[in-house]
Amino acid sequence: MIKTDILIIGAGPTGLFTVFEAGLLQLKCHLIDALPQPGGQCAELYPKKPIYDIPGFPEVLAGDLVDNLMEQIKSFEPGFTLAERAETIEKLEDDTFLVTTNKGTQHNAPIVAIAGGLGSFEPRKPPIPNIANFEDKGVAYMVKDPEVYRNKKVIIAGGGDSALDWSIFLADVAEEVTLVHRRNEFRGALDSVEKVKELKDLGKINLITPGEVDGLQADENGHLASVIIKKKSEATEEIQLEVDHFIPLFGLSPKLGPIADWGLEIEKNAIKVDNALDYQTNIPGVYAIGDVNTYPGKLKLILCGFHEATLMCQSAYKKIYPDKKYVMKYTTVGGVTGFDGTKKEAPKAVVKAID
Amino acid sequence: MIKTDILIIGAGPTGLFTVFEAGLLQLKCHLIDALPQPGGQCAELYPKKPIYDIPGFPEVLAGDLVDNLMEQIKSFEPGFTLAERAETIEKLEDDTFLVTTNKGTQHNAPIVAIAGGLGSFEPRKPPIPNIANFEDKGVAYMVKDPEVYRNKKVIIAGGGDSALDWSIFLADVAEEVTLVHRRNEFRGALDSVEKVKELKDLGKINLITPGEVDGLQADENGHLASVIIKKKSEATEEIQLEVDHFIPLFGLSPKLGPIADWGLEIEKNAIKVDNALDYQTNIPGVYAIGDVNTYPGKLKLILCGFHEATLMCQSAYKKIYPDKKYVMKYTTVGGVTGFDGTKKEAPKAVVKAID
Ligand SMILES: Cc1cc2nc3c(=O)[nH]c(=O)nc-3n(C[C@H](O)[C@H](O)[C@H](O)COP(=O)(O)OP(=O)(O)OC[C@H]3O[C@@H](n4cnc5c(N)ncnc54)[C@H](O)[C@@H]3O)c2cc1C
Ligand SMILES: Cc1cc2nc3c(=O)[nH]c(=O)nc-3n(C[C@H](O)[C@H](O)[C@H](O)COP(=O)(O)OP(=O)(O)OC[C@H]3O[C@@H](n4cnc5c(N)ncnc54)[C@H](O)[C@@H]3O)c2cc1C
Repeated sequence: MIKTDILIIGAGPTGLFTVFEAGLLQLKCHLIDALPQPGGQCAELYPKKPIYDIPGFPEVLAGDLVDNLMEQIKSFEPGFTLAERAETIEKLEDDTFLVTTNKGTQHNAPIVAIAGGLGSFEPRKPPIPNIANFEDKGVAYMVKDPEVYRNKKVIIAGGGDSALDWSIFLADVAEEVTLVHRRNEFRGALDSVEKVKELKDLGKINLITPGEVDGLQADENGHLASVIIKKKSEATEEIQLEVDHFIPLFGLSPKLGPIADWGLEIEKNAIKVDNALDYQTNIPGVYAIGDVNTYPGKLKLILCGFHEATLMCQSAYKKIYPDKKYVMKYTTVGGVTGFDGTKKEAPKAVVKAID
Repeated sequence: MIKTDILIIGAGPTGLFTVFEAGLLQLKCHLIDALPQPGGQCAELYPKKPIYDIPGFPEVLAGDLVDNLMEQIKSFEPGFTLAERAETIEKLEDDTFLVTTNKGTQHNAPIVAIAGGLGSFEPRKPPIPNIANFEDKGVAYMVKDPEVYRNKKVIIAGGGDSALDWSIFLADVAEEVTLVHRRNEFRGALDSVEKVKELKDLGKINLITPGEVDGLQADENGHLASVIIKKKSEATEEIQLEVDHFIPLFGLSPKLGPIADWGLEIEKNAIKVDNALDYQTNIPGVYAIGDVNTYPGKLKLILCGFHEATLMCQSAYKKIYPDKKYVMKYTTVGGVTGFDGTKKEAPKAVVKAID
């Protein structure tokens, strides 16, 4: 069982910055996210797009913002449970919470911060009748660890940035990459589209368009062995292709999901919090910050999540240490002392005679 | 009379970012600050020190943060009334506000956002009896425009970063720079102290330590003509020095000042606001954001001012345009359209066939 001070559900920008503010208070954090990588919407939906309203950044790519946040929190050594969905919450006798994921991983903490954004990102699955039988047996809806595909035969389906980008990436890793899309036109960053064309011309990506994966076939162990592709030209042609892996990348969409059943007050698909004080929910010890919460005047903006996380951590500190008096020190004045033993601090002024 | 949509009192980080959020709503801003430069505490008190808790910046110098904010708001063309203190506020018949500075400059706006931080920065003045007679006649407590000193004889007093930095800067501008400090030891950044020593050795700065300016003498027009310096060695020595300008830099300290008499609810030297909604004060149309406000759980942090400014602007918009329905658009999606005709926006995805 993973134990921590603040268990954060959601590793989007809000969840990540929570680690920093908690760390300043010497509180440890662990994050759970349904996605295989941190960054939430920024990483999953628009990593290469610029954001213009992060204070102090006239322009920053969403992916770079996530990288910067990861760098900023590094010395506070957050733990991560990735590619798992927080499923249930239970209050234990010692007043702490037990949060269990869909994979059964258990987490225990006195404070839970829900930073779940628009919800847990869930893949859109293609309508192939027996596809569920192949999940974790050759079919995956997102790439968790590209090494799994080394020297394997991989077929990717989809027509957006994820399909393009993973085809490009895996062209160098897999034995064979086939990209199937039901149209001839792809929708994505210009340089990704051009790179795929280049790799296709070099024979490093097999392109099948317009086409659709229509059937899946197993080997004797129930693992994926081949797929049936319907290629639509004048007449529809059926292609059978031997593959080890099938990765349909039809987009991930967020669903509030299991959190909706945790007994929290929900309004318009978001969790109601006390914004006049500390962003706590109706369950004491459970906070909701960032896009996932709602209150009068709420704006679903990244900079708002940062503020909410900061105030929330102060409140959490008081709950964990009701008797300690915490005096806030500016980071410029007190520095930042990581859990890894590092210390960042401003150079001290010198007192020096000039003679 | 200067007219604008949102009149911002205080050009610290909070006031500056307000310009950006207002600009996204196509509202114009004008800022008043008692300091000659924007940036508030960051610019005045610790421009060369790193801040570690600005989200997305593992480390940023306070001065660089201010520069970045200035860059971020540039296209929204804010107006500035600098080196003047907002002194009085008056509600006009048309429900707008008239704010007048200590220099008599008048500003008119339907919305006032007080982003006054710890207060208006006021200089600590040396205890020279007739010094007030020389204000604006050779004596200045801060450098507003260094060009004033070109080819003049200047004496600077003080032992901290401002005295060091302006001595260095003016050594290249003024005809003669004398630096007087009552101790031999200076307190400041190491490289500033070393640079002053170097300039002293080159004869470009006259250094008088330990010493104190003790008297001021006028020419026939009442302008400063010379100063009396008490130089303390074994016996105290009196030096008379002909100068055009005397700049005592003994630090600026913030005072809530005139704002305290504006009929606002004040608690612990800060303005009470409705943090459950929009950071409005007890006077409708007057908001208080950043360090200057207080509410349960308030933290005097830069990132909090950013959030408060953002929510405040939404509320201001509804007051100015009660009948318009504003639909928030992410900057990534809608871009940023400046008042100067510029438009920043994310590159669009292409839809392109690969053949
Ligand atoms: C195209 C686009 C452009 C945008 N542009 C801007 C902009 O310019 N400026 C701006 O401020 N904002 C912008 N946003 C919004 C911004 O991305 C969000 O405000 C921000 O991502 C919210 O951060 P968060 O950490 O609260 O939530 P999210 O980023 O949504 O992260 C929440 C995370 O929680 C996880 N999660 C949820 N429930 C569970 C569960 N039960 N178990 C495990 N994990 C779970 C999700 O998988 C997700 O990764 C934009 C959004 C989009 C889609
Ligand atoms: C040494 C030091 C280190 C710090 N470190 C950190 C840190 O690490 N992290 C962090 O988040 N914060 C830090 N802070 C605090 C941070 O600087 C403040 O939170 C921030 O500056 C507040 O911004 P503001 O815009 O609200 O107010 P301010 O920066 O105080 O600006 C207010 C401005 O309003 C002007 N003003 C006020 N009244 C009037 C008037 N009547 N007329 C005209 N002008 C007026 C003032 O002159 C001033 O320029 C630190 C502060 C100091 C002093």
